Amino acid sequence: MQSLIDPDLLFPPEPGVRSVARSLYATVKDLPIVSPHGHTDPRWYALNEPFPDPAQLLIVPDHYIFRMLFSQGIPLESLGVPRLDGAPVETDGRAIWRLFAQNYRLFRGTPTRLWMDYVLSELFGIEAPLSAGTADATYDAVAEKLAEDAYRPRALFSRFNIEVIATTEGALDDLRWHQIIQESGWSGRVVTAYRPDAIVDPDFEGFSDNLDRLAEITGADTRTWKGYLDAHRLRRAFFKSYGATSSDHGHPTADTANLSDAAAEELFSRIRAGSTDEREKRLFRAQMLTEMAKMSLDDGLVLQIHPGSWRNHSAAMMARFGRDKGFDIPTHTDYVAALRPLLDAVGLEPNLTVIAFTLDETSYARELAPLAGVYPALRLGPAWWFHDSPEGMRRFREMTTETAGFYNTVGFNDDTRAFPSIPARHDIARRVDCAFLARLVCEHRLREDEAYELATELAHTLAKKAYRL
Amino acid sequence: MQSLIDPDLLFPPEPGVRSVARSLYATVKDLPIVSPHGHTDPRWYALNEPFPDPAQLLIVPDHYIFRMLFSQGIPLESLGVPRLDGAPVETDGRAIWRLFAQNYRLFRGTPTRLWMDYVLSELFGIEAPLSAGTADATYDAVAEKLAEDAYRPRALFSRFNIEVIATTEGALDDLRWHQIIQESGWSGRVVTAYRPDAIVDPDFEGFSDNLDRLAEITGADTRTWKGYLDAHRLRRAFFKSYGATSSDHGHPTADTANLSDAAAEELFSRIRAGSTDEREKRLFRAQMLTEMAKMSLDDGLVLQIHPGSWRNHSAAMMARFGRDKGFDIPTHTDYVAALRPLLDAVGLEPNLTVIAFTLDETSYARELAPLAGVYPALRLGPAWWFHDSPEGMRRFREMTTETAGFYNTVGFNDDTRAFPSIPARHDIARRVDCAFLARLVCEHRLREDEAYELATELAHTLAKKAYRL
Amino acid sequence: MQSLIDPDLLFPPEPGVRSVARSLYATVKDLPIVSPHGHTDPRWYALNEPFPDPAQLLIVPDHYIFRMLFSQGIPLESLGVPRLDGAPVETDGRAIWRLFAQNYRLFRGTPTRLWMDYVLSELFGIEAPLSAGTADATYDAVAEKLAEDAYRPRALFSRFNIEVIATTEGALDDLRWHQIIQESGWSGRVVTAYRPDAIVDPDFEGFSDNLDRLAEITGADTRTWKGYLDAHRLRRAFFKSYGATSSDHGHPTADTANLSDAAAEELFSRIRAGSTDEREKRLFRAQMLTEMAKMSLDDGLVLQIHPGSWRNHSAAMMARFGRDKGFDIPTHTDYVAALRPLLDAVGLEPNLTVIAFTLDETSYARELAPLAGVYPALRLGPAWWFHDSPEGMRRFREMTTETAGFYNTVGFNDDTRAFPSIPARHDIARRVDCAFLARLVCEHRLREDEAYELATELAHTLAKKAYRL
Repeated sequence: MQSLIDPDLLFPPEPGVRSVARSLYATVKDLPIVSPHGHTDPRWYALNEPFPDPAQLLIVPDHYIFRMLFSQGIPLESLGVPRLDGAPVETDGRAIWRLFAQNYRLFRGTPTRLWMDYVLSELFGIEAPLSAGTADATYDAVAEKLAEDAYRPRALFSRFNIEVIATTEGALDDLRWHQIIQESGWSGRVVTAYRPDAIVDPDFEGFSDNLDRLAEITGADTRTWKGYLDAHRLRRAFFKSYGATSSDHGHPTADTANLSDAAAEELFSRIRAGSTDEREKRLFRAQMLTEMAKMSLDDGLVLQIHPGSWRNHSAAMMARFGRDKGFDIPTHTDYVAALRPLLDAVGLEPNLTVIAFTLDETSYARELAPLAGVYPALRLGPAWWFHDSPEGMRRFREMTTETAGFYNTVGFNDDTRAFPSIPARHDIARRVDCAFLARLVCEHRLREDEAYELATELAHTLAKKAYRL
Repeated sequence: MQSLIDPDLLFPPEPGVRSVARSLYATVKDLPIVSPHGHTDPRWYALNEPFPDPAQLLIVPDHYIFRMLFSQGIPLESLGVPRLDGAPVETDGRAIWRLFAQNYRLFRGTPTRLWMDYVLSELFGIEAPLSAGTADATYDAVAEKLAEDAYRPRALFSRFNIEVIATTEGALDDLRWHQIIQESGWSGRVVTAYRPDAIVDPDFEGFSDNLDRLAEITGADTRTWKGYLDAHRLRRAFFKSYGATSSDHGHPTADTANLSDAAAEELFSRIRAGSTDEREKRLFRAQMLTEMAKMSLDDGLVLQIHPGSWRNHSAAMMARFGRDKGFDIPTHTDYVAALRPLLDAVGLEPNLTVIAFTLDETSYARELAPLAGVYPALRLGPAWWFHDSPEGMRRFREMTTETAGFYNTVGFNDDTRAFPSIPARHDIARRVDCAFLARLVCEHRLREDEAYELATELAHTLAKKAYRL
Repeated sequence: MQSLIDPDLLFPPEPGVRSVARSLYATVKDLPIVSPHGHTDPRWYALNEPFPDPAQLLIVPDHYIFRMLFSQGIPLESLGVPRLDGAPVETDGRAIWRLFAQNYRLFRGTPTRLWMDYVLSELFGIEAPLSAGTADATYDAVAEKLAEDAYRPRALFSRFNIEVIATTEGALDDLRWHQIIQESGWSGRVVTAYRPDAIVDPDFEGFSDNLDRLAEITGADTRTWKGYLDAHRLRRAFFKSYGATSSDHGHPTADTANLSDAAAEELFSRIRAGSTDEREKRLFRAQMLTEMAKMSLDDGLVLQIHPGSWRNHSAAMMARFGRDKGFDIPTHTDYVAALRPLLDAVGLEPNLTVIAFTLDETSYARELAPLAGVYPALRLGPAWWFHDSPEGMRRFREMTTETAGFYNTVGFNDDTRAFPSIPARHDIARRVDCAFLARLVCEHRLREDEAYELATELAHTLAKKAYRL
């Protein structure tokens, strides 16, 4: 039986180009995985417990999957997604899996389909295409493997050939799982990343309480601007002690500001007092990006900006199921005006690294590549979220390379909570990059020796360098 | 002599991909045409009279054609386009045709060229490329055919293998032609669609008179909000009795609103009194989209939103020739904020179908695919108007499929007044989709059996299902 | 040793398409160069002195090059870019060249790489890829050639087969170099173009003094609106006497206005008095585009609009190095609303030519092609600046042709200060266009005879016609 994953997956059909793509890919497919940005749970690596049933592992937590099923009228309850009100939802993994399998055709042409086929095929040895007819057999085969020790987190970590992986924790997190990992003597390299949204965004749930908690944790006086900034510095140092090399910021826009100390202090006092003025809240978030960049100059953390998502677009779904249920929608995002205050402040610093991501592909060629192609501090994050897909990654290369080159990009991020899919995601990114390079070679825009060098850099080196890992 | 239409038209040149595209296309090329949205004249089907001369049929009413000729300095008068002031324009069909033929090179690389070659070749049996030298012979051959009974509307309807076609009528239309068709016993299925712009848009010519007329027709009191809504319900039911399964809304933006009953009633009274406040008029149009969606929940009509065209951009041309003269220009269109009120109101209803179109391709990957990929009520209309072209349709698939999948799209719309071009338009859409599917197959992103299934669904099934035909 | 430039550079890898592309290209590769828009220095052609050392010729003035190197942390001082404060910068051409060569990998995948390889290979006969190891040998070989008479400007002009080239001069320029060229009896055709930004943009350095100077030069009273417009007319006539067939306007946006004479006069008086009102300054720039278009109707100059660049984005770099140091960043640019006043005023005139450029590719299919596809006065400038690249030019054709056709475009602009790169730029544009045409042929969207005709038109004829050269 044919494998679910063809050896030539994603390579251009023209035989000459395919041949070059294959050769390039052969040199990178077994390179270790550097995963500098993601959302796996450090608890997995700390406790090394077996993963739960196939549905709880592969379906229930994956917003790519349940959003598509929901779009075709399948209730989230029937997919086991928990309700905030505690009303009953499906808990039978097999029932959830069957529903998914019956509707697997919905994913045709999507990256989810490729990731899932890859996981079933390469990780679980499944050979039959997933469908209503094969649902049970597939479920059983996956469940059986998950019970084996070889499928526990640390074993998979080795099997996946992960050189280093970053998780993301909130600024108030005690990093207990990272502590356990560090103390366990295990050789796997898992680092954290500093995500301070809860203490930077006045609209975040419990913002004021969060600042009180921050004061407790750090001993800094978060009622003052100076104390608040000190508290950040202390937390950043704490995160660095658990390997963090980066911070991450999920703002609604890419707005930045660079107020005078006095103006920033005055603004903070109004925000701290609970200002509900939208303009002030926006300005505070904007100012904090620049503050974070200035701290990065001191402590070396790489600053990641992930803007442009309208979070929780459906009020009803937010009320019923909470955040992260597939209702985050990209919006038009400006960078040229938005990033200017930050870039004027620190953009010329060659020792600073700010990585900008976008959900608005129109900014690739128009804004982000021209900015990253001149400011020493700025790098382009890879194609992100909805655009972390074959066509999306191809467009990223086609629209950024000519102005920003390859060396102002930072390799691949898998950005995932779905641990079993990590090799799939990196593999697909490597294939897409090799396909792009192969086209450049066959159009004589790049020599073959250069393409080999680049293939390795895109698959491995650039991420290590950019994220200082 | 070679046909004007090559059997491999639009298939990718790489032999392996072309071979798959050919095979897929062979299974769909003869499927019946489902045309769920268009602007052909129901009078044709009702009276079944012969079509007029070649120029009056193929040139004078086609804004794609006369706008391109006008852009190169050819006056619309010389193309027979009537002036509002009744000043003389060219009426000699042959003269108009010659002018078109002499300038046929202007259409190189455009869909108009493909549609016209297809019509000349497949419908009229012309073999010689159109040019100044072949203008007269072509004209004569077409004119001769048009005089035959086999070229009358109903005969062509059969020949084109049209399973069902929708026309579009204004809300005040008496649907007399549809009544004649219905009573004629003819087997052709022609349905109407409810287009209420004239009684929904305060900027529409004669808006106030239109509401008075609406009252006369329906017996509802259109001076009150409740009566006005009732009048809509009555007209929708009337349209349904002539087969309508959809409504259609051509707003300048995609803005929607969801006011309280009291606020909506208050707004309507101001609008009814002739408010000239732009904000109020915008808000009324926005509110009415949500009202229509709510009525759709009751009566099952599919709601189509066609936003983002700046109509009649040239004031001078509007004054001289009136509407629809090629001066409608797409604009930047937002959907994420604009559709939110409607989606909050009814977006989670799996029994509602709202089909969103766009003239702003930047919204495909950034906004529309993410929205349609999660809201059960939302589907993506096909590439529209200027984008109903090989490159435009390819971009539509490349930018929507990975996030929305194929099943949140609704097949093809020909959206045309040009009856003879309907098979050409469907054929080209089928070819482009087969080419896209063939690439996915050859890049091993889709199995061949899946591609066959999808080819039929994209060509036929999805349109029937989405439009409930 | 293989040439740095492969004969099949940029042709699609599929053998059938490549073969057509090759054949098309063979018919255009030796056509004379028409360069209707650029920034070479007329002094070169006037004095015909040898060019300076390789670095001063090829690196120091090229913002594509130094911006990329700067983005990776290389100070502009080390690349010989002069500082405004006169602080020392590198002056050793060899040292600059070595730094460039060591970092040449940064340009992989960029047009700069192709242009540079083309210049080194085709103009200087270099065979070895540029790298740290070949830096000195390359430098020596280039320097040696530059000392030869065959490498002086006029000899290269002949060798490059330039039929006509336009330079760009400010409205206050005395055109002395053009006068010398004209009087020299040399057969090379070098024309100027009228660039009045310094007397049209109230934000331009020395705007008020510039208007005083304009009065001195022309004898017109630039304190009055009428006198100011007369001064423009006189300067345009003067520029025409040195061959100018076009004017060029580099506004921040595409905004136009069409005020009444009285309102325009009133606005001018406030601007002349030094208004600092941003709205007034914007309105004045907008009004002046329409005034220029009206003058074009009289004197036949082709009007070029180059909007949408945020100039000198970094305040610190502007202060240290001045303008044009790679910190001009494209922004979102609207055309539909912006151009309407001008198009309402003169857009229907078939004897006027307005050429619109963009740095915002999202406007190609959405706005510019629909506008140019209907307004007789409007044409589309080629892919510009960051988009003058293989992928950028391909996207331009893919996104404009279906709606605007080929004949509403105007051929290629090299738009360069880099004289030695002119053949490279035209060659690459010809290759990209032939590749695009070859695809259309092989997808049977265009006959081969049409493609040959178009290849010549795109490479040569359209530019001559559109620019009236």
